Amino acid sequence: MRYEMRFSGSGGQGVILASVILAEAAVADGLNAVQSQAYGPEARGGLCRAETVLSREQIWYTKVDRPQFLLALTQASLDKYAQSLAEDAVVMADDTLALPAGVDPARALRLPILATARDKVGKIMTANIVAVGAINRALGLFGEEALREGVRRHIPAGTEELNWKALEAGTALIGDEAAGRFRRPAL
Amino acid sequence: MRYEMRFSGSGGQGVILASVILAEAAVADGLNAVQSQAYGPEARGGLCRAETVLSREQIWYTKVDRPQFLLALTQASLDKYAQSLAEDAVVMADDTLALPAGVDPARALRLPILATARDKVGKIMTANIVAVGAINRALGLFGEEALREGVRRHIPAGTEELNWKALEAGTALIGDEAAGRFRRPAL
Repeated sequence: MRYEMRFSGSGGQGVILASVILAEAAVADGLNAVQSQAYGPEARGGLCRAETVLSREQIWYTKVDRPQFLLALTQASLDKYAQSLAEDAVVMADDTLALPAGVDPARALRLPILATARDKVGKIMTANIVAVGAINRALGLFGEEALREGVRRHIPAGTEELNWKALEAGTALIGDEAAGRFRRPAL
Repeated sequence: MRYEMRFSGSGGQGVILASVILAEAAVADGLNAVQSQAYGPEARGGLCRAETVLSREQIWYTKVDRPQFLLALTQASLDKYAQSLAEDAVVMADDTLALPAGVDPARALRLPILATARDKVGKIMTANIVAVGAINRALGLFGEEALREGVRRHIPAGTEELNWKALEAGTALIGDEAAGRFRRPAL
């Protein structure tokens, strides 16, 4: 039993950090996790992606082939990575993006991630933390303390308040109905 | 043809960042790289490890089983990870550590990484950057610009000078003889 997550966008949007934060939160919550990213032709083309695998057991196979969750912050990353998803995968995308053919709208969450970071939090570079908050709530992943522990280790001292604001704004993007519908299978 | 590297120490020593920096430097230098870390029982025990795989081709198998290079900044990490190395692997360890049985002293570099960071650079937390400089010079990995590009993306603004100092101090730990002897096989 494992849960494979992929995080994608353009370089500089912090999707690697989102992946790392959720992996570390998993540990704080008692799970095992492997976090990875590939640098190659895609990275040179401006695409950025990272992956986190969660499991209760030790993780032997570390590669992510057909993720059960995809975050996409750009159209290019959504179009590309929507092509390789597990059946029933949950897709979370910024609401400025169009869902490509093949993605079941009933399994997709289009959310104002970038606008929330820019307008509500006041810093576009917190979009990855907004996304982490939304992902955590939608999938029902970790307790708030585990999540904050994951974030805390990766933010500059003095930016805690900004980042808690981003986490909360992201969490608030997910209503009770969505939080029930998109919950991750038990591990 | 691939080159597998493992970076180990205790949490907070920045070995994950060393692994990430070298993976990104590889891309700036035209190679492909996969960077990963596992969080699990070892992490809860205070051990921290990360891995970077380099190749000219796309990397399909991302797991590191028998690395050709090991960095160890603590005795516990050296003792544990020295048990699973490729034949002829290069081991770089802080010089306060004792080489475990089974490690060929002719393939080991014991270097004052922690002391250099603390006394020469003036900040113990730059030990990972000192190590990156030493690794890059000993293995003959990347050009200086590619290496700095990898570092630049991960340091707080305003700390460039400190980090260049750490890189240079690490590079200076490796003499010409060692730089010839430990050179990485061509990819």
